[in-house]
Amino acid sequence: MIIVVKKEARENQIDILTRWLEGQGIRVGRTEGNNQAILGLVGNTKSIDEEFISQFEIVESVRRVSEKFKRANRKFHPEDAVIDCNGVKIGGGHFAIIAGPCSVESEAQINEVAKAVQASGATLLRGGAFKPRTSPYDFQGMKGQGLELLEIAKAATGMPLVTEIMNADHLPLFENVDVLQIGARNMQNFELLKAVGRTNKVVLLKRGLANTLNELLMSAEYIMSEGNPNVIFCERGIRTFETYTRNTLDLSAVTALKEMSHLPVVVDPSHATGKANMVEPMAMAAAAAGADGLMIEVHNDPAHALCDGPQSLTPAQFDRVVKRVMAIREAVKATE
Amino acid sequence: MIIVVKKEARENQIDILTRWLEGQGIRVGRTEGNNQAILGLVGNTKSIDEEFISQFEIVESVRRVSEKFKRANRKFHPEDAVIDCNGVKIGGGHFAIIAGPCSVESEAQINEVAKAVQASGATLLRGGAFKPRTSPYDFQGMKGQGLELLEIAKAATGMPLVTEIMNADHLPLFENVDVLQIGARNMQNFELLKAVGRTNKVVLLKRGLANTLNELLMSAEYIMSEGNPNVIFCERGIRTFETYTRNTLDLSAVTALKEMSHLPVVVDPSHATGKANMVEPMAMAAAAAGADGLMIEVHNDPAHALCDGPQSLTPAQFDRVVKRVMAIREAVKATE
Amino acid sequence: MIIVVKKEARENQIDILTRWLEGQGIRVGRTEGNNQAILGLVGNTKSIDEEFISQFEIVESVRRVSEKFKRANRKFHPEDAVIDCNGVKIGGGHFAIIAGPCSVESEAQINEVAKAVQASGATLLRGGAFKPRTSPYDFQGMKGQGLELLEIAKAATGMPLVTEIMNADHLPLFENVDVLQIGARNMQNFELLKAVGRTNKVVLLKRGLANTLNELLMSAEYIMSEGNPNVIFCERGIRTFETYTRNTLDLSAVTALKEMSHLPVVVDPSHATGKANMVEPMAMAAAAAGADGLMIEVHNDPAHALCDGPQSLTPAQFDRVVKRVMAIREAVKATE
Amino acid sequence: MIIVVKKEARENQIDILTRWLEGQGIRVGRTEGNNQAILGLVGNTKSIDEEFISQFEIVESVRRVSEKFKRANRKFHPEDAVIDCNGVKIGGGHFAIIAGPCSVESEAQINEVAKAVQASGATLLRGGAFKPRTSPYDFQGMKGQGLELLEIAKAATGMPLVTEIMNADHLPLFENVDVLQIGARNMQNFELLKAVGRTNKVVLLKRGLANTLNELLMSAEYIMSEGNPNVIFCERGIRTFETYTRNTLDLSAVTALKEMSHLPVVVDPSHATGKANMVEPMAMAAAAAGADGLMIEVHNDPAHALCDGPQSLTPAQFDRVVKRVMAIREAVKATE
Repeated sequence: MIIVVKKEARENQIDILTRWLEGQGIRVGRTEGNNQAILGLVGNTKSIDEEFISQFEIVESVRRVSEKFKRANRKFHPEDAVIDCNGVKIGGGHFAIIAGPCSVESEAQINEVAKAVQASGATLLRGGAFKPRTSPYDFQGMKGQGLELLEIAKAATGMPLVTEIMNADHLPLFENVDVLQIGARNMQNFELLKAVGRTNKVVLLKRGLANTLNELLMSAEYIMSEGNPNVIFCERGIRTFETYTRNTLDLSAVTALKEMSHLPVVVDPSHATGKANMVEPMAMAAAAAGADGLMIEVHNDPAHALCDGPQSLTPAQFDRVVKRVMAIREAVKATE
Repeated sequence: MIIVVKKEARENQIDILTRWLEGQGIRVGRTEGNNQAILGLVGNTKSIDEEFISQFEIVESVRRVSEKFKRANRKFHPEDAVIDCNGVKIGGGHFAIIAGPCSVESEAQINEVAKAVQASGATLLRGGAFKPRTSPYDFQGMKGQGLELLEIAKAATGMPLVTEIMNADHLPLFENVDVLQIGARNMQNFELLKAVGRTNKVVLLKRGLANTLNELLMSAEYIMSEGNPNVIFCERGIRTFETYTRNTLDLSAVTALKEMSHLPVVVDPSHATGKANMVEPMAMAAAAAGADGLMIEVHNDPAHALCDGPQSLTPAQFDRVVKRVMAIREAVKATE
Repeated sequence: MIIVVKKEARENQIDILTRWLEGQGIRVGRTEGNNQAILGLVGNTKSIDEEFISQFEIVESVRRVSEKFKRANRKFHPEDAVIDCNGVKIGGGHFAIIAGPCSVESEAQINEVAKAVQASGATLLRGGAFKPRTSPYDFQGMKGQGLELLEIAKAATGMPLVTEIMNADHLPLFENVDVLQIGARNMQNFELLKAVGRTNKVVLLKRGLANTLNELLMSAEYIMSEGNPNVIFCERGIRTFETYTRNTLDLSAVTALKEMSHLPVVVDPSHATGKANMVEPMAMAAAAAGADGLMIEVHNDPAHALCDGPQSLTPAQFDRVVKRVMAIREAVKATE
Repeated sequence: MIIVVKKEARENQIDILTRWLEGQGIRVGRTEGNNQAILGLVGNTKSIDEEFISQFEIVESVRRVSEKFKRANRKFHPEDAVIDCNGVKIGGGHFAIIAGPCSVESEAQINEVAKAVQASGATLLRGGAFKPRTSPYDFQGMKGQGLELLEIAKAATGMPLVTEIMNADHLPLFENVDVLQIGARNMQNFELLKAVGRTNKVVLLKRGLANTLNELLMSAEYIMSEGNPNVIFCERGIRTFETYTRNTLDLSAVTALKEMSHLPVVVDPSHATGKANMVEPMAMAAAAAGADGLMIEVHNDPAHALCDGPQSLTPAQFDRVVKRVMAIREAVKATE
């Protein structure tokens, strides 16, 4: 249920209504529209009488929502969200390039890569410390130590950090991380979604291997319904019958998500294709399709990377990708 | 790496070898073969010199394993595993029928269903207390209170309990639960797998929506490599392009898993099809294909169930299914 | 549009109505219901005035059909169809076992296999003469010569023949073939469907690699709307992300198709799994699920078969499969 | 088997070798490399002795090909193919825009659309005359009459025609058609592929609903092994679990196909997405990914189109798409 509050309403009047609703066991989220507040009611709203609510002097309109999701829904938030990642903005025309190695491997490695990608135009640094791996016998990341090395690279470059969290109990370790990544395998780990929803950190939510766009939107809703509005979607390829590429990049998801939601969408061509030579054309295609950013794996020595070497770019290759992507962005904007 | 120990080896000799290996940072798992111990080495075994190990007097043979999984692998455990669920066995010829409602809704409901399914031949009671739902606004289960109601039904019937766990922090609440279910969406929630792997409870591991059999085996390996050998697989349908059924039941997975692993495989025709009228033929087909058990949703009033009503059987329908499944089982055994 | 004719209607009255409808450019199909005729109107029925038709003395009722398919629809033909394949019946309780090699390779081979499978209980002989192969450089079958060898085996055993047709221009060569198989790749080759629909031969219609059940029903409708009611469905596995098996056998399709259509459904476990050791359990499962028959590849020397050797059974393996399947059939019938 | 002929070889010498090979039951295809001929041997080459062939004075080298396809393989034809569609080139830097209605509906409609799309920059005219439809009761196209109307539009505009052929027997009707389209459902209709392979018309080969890139390449090989080298690939979306779009556009296929084959690749964003509002971003993305052309549905009155209205653009929308695509093309070329 959505309550649109009149422009002239005073804060204490809104408070009274909010507290009354909460007394009915309803959670109330508040969004600022064009100079007026919009209250989104979450919970069993069946018991709330629309006519009764309409009687409140400050209420402009009430409507029951047949939409399955609310906070992530563009219908209730027509303007693009602009997500601030500790100074770097994504969405609403702000294009972000997230780059770095699949895994943090050493201080020298992460520093070298961070400086190289920053020089080429990356604005956020990625690097895996906790790594989800199909096999328990594969390298699982440097964990806490990896986070410390990321912080050193952040201090050296000033780039905000993006890294994956797999366990809510690890949250205290992520204090200096700017963007919490939820990996594809955890897209429907609802307990983890709720936990990051109770923080105020930006969450980069990757689409699951075989999850529909509707399910992705609902997972964003899990995070947002806990109070955290800072969600960024990431399309990273879906699982299909085709085996030539690691996954099948679904670029129509960019258009679809931006139609249904006001949240930004970034594209990860590295995991989507699993092949370094496909990163450039798919990054360019993502920019042409209207993505709000890219996430690209870069390694100073792909042949010896501890994970995902075959899909990592060298810094030189990455530099070329950024230039070409920026040219595409210009063409997109020039013809809007 | 696998070390086969000579039959005549004494325990203290095996201990010395084990402790030496552990000193090298290797975890050592022990399986009892035909009157002789087999040691499975987990960790970075690249540094272990095979020739050096062969020098130990008690070592019969050493081999590097190209197999990606070890503890769940039939090659290293040729006989069927028989998993004891607090008195009810599954595997190695023991067929188990797990039945109950999708969600626990009330004491009357769970007691009524429990007694009914027991009378028809069910040997384990299922019921959801913590429910993973696509939407944060859907019924999320009765949670801790639901577990208490399950315990009441267990006390009344003596049936061991099977119920889903979504968060390792909830483990203390599951003390009286006999089988921890890992749901399809958490099949690659590796942190949760490791947490249940550190318990000694039986784990029912459901196949993910779009996970390969190889990935399912590796997830079992995550649990087992933490020390818990009590894993049961559950095929519950995979996501395909077909929309007539909720999922596509992959019965060839039963044969495939039993070929690759010694662990038991149960089939859930309720979630696989999403349609009550398909549960009977698919349950019969699963029995014919050699499954070790079934998991079936039964509700005393499917039309008013709080979740998954359309796929729940009435107790009378369930009774008929059990009779027909048992007739199939007899035909399978009579012609072996 | 469906016209139910009164029981007391005389043939010449029905003729008059039929001819009038045909004069409007409508094709009229006739089905015999419980002692009364049902006319199914195919074509642009929008121009037909229901009220006008209702005025005919012999018309009991008229209704516009929202169903997308008519002739293959169980709603208009509640009893199971029994398809007569030159003396061997399939459907309505008649279970058929179709067996033989993937490809006809020589007179000795096809005769030896035919006699062996007949001795074990097969009632129809299959064998590929025209083979659809992914590569133009792979063995394409013995073509016309292969059909001649099949005819020799038919003469020797009396078994009706099932073999694939890929080109309507080949129809004259198939005069002595009893069941025309439409392969998975041609399930939506609508021109071929219409061509076999203009014959009076039984058509075995295989489900396409990625075709929904609804599309399969519509393809049957293509055949039947040309006048040929003798269609048998064949589930042979669908293409999914799983690569362990060649395809994923969808046994729920058996139940679904028999619910939506009155036509028989056979299952091909050989192509569905691509693995000989899976044929037995999947054949048993298909029988338990209520299939009307099986199609199984048998070769006297699988290791040297010119195609699909890994999925072919030896005659001895086939003999065991038939025995076990028959035991399952007994259990199914005994508990109905 | 591939035979590279020495540069100094005379034609009559090549003829002698070719005739000898043909006498062995081998078909010989000839490709012109850098000033020297390359012979591709098709058929059972196992019986051909490499050493014997090497003895021929004109033979530079012989090698057995492990490649599964030859004529469509970039390894044997490193330069991009440029396909001439009656004066309009595709491939090797030539970008083609194919546009027109899903179905030809009337002379006025096809003329109006043809002139509009030509004015916006389209260089080839598409329009369906024979339409493959899932249901036999849906509009099947104007057939022969539709072809005549297309010819009128071609005469009026000079645009070469692209239209689908479903039956080899219809070939005489397609005499004035410049590009024969093989639809997705017929991608593995091998008999039709061979038939169009025996013509010298350009063939636009659409990827099947669930066909791998390898299978698509093999289908091109079917056409080319009959002697027709003029094949253009068309990516038009694949079938996945996602239902928001009609299909899932696989743009990585563009990069993959151009890596494996020298043949041009065009993209059909209309069928891939099934939504008019997605055509623009996906057309731009395809251009950014390096496609050699686009095929776009345009209708003068999408709301009343006899088929596929929801995915058709108006001429005004199409005009904007072409402008934006051309800007992307410029950006791609400027940064190469």
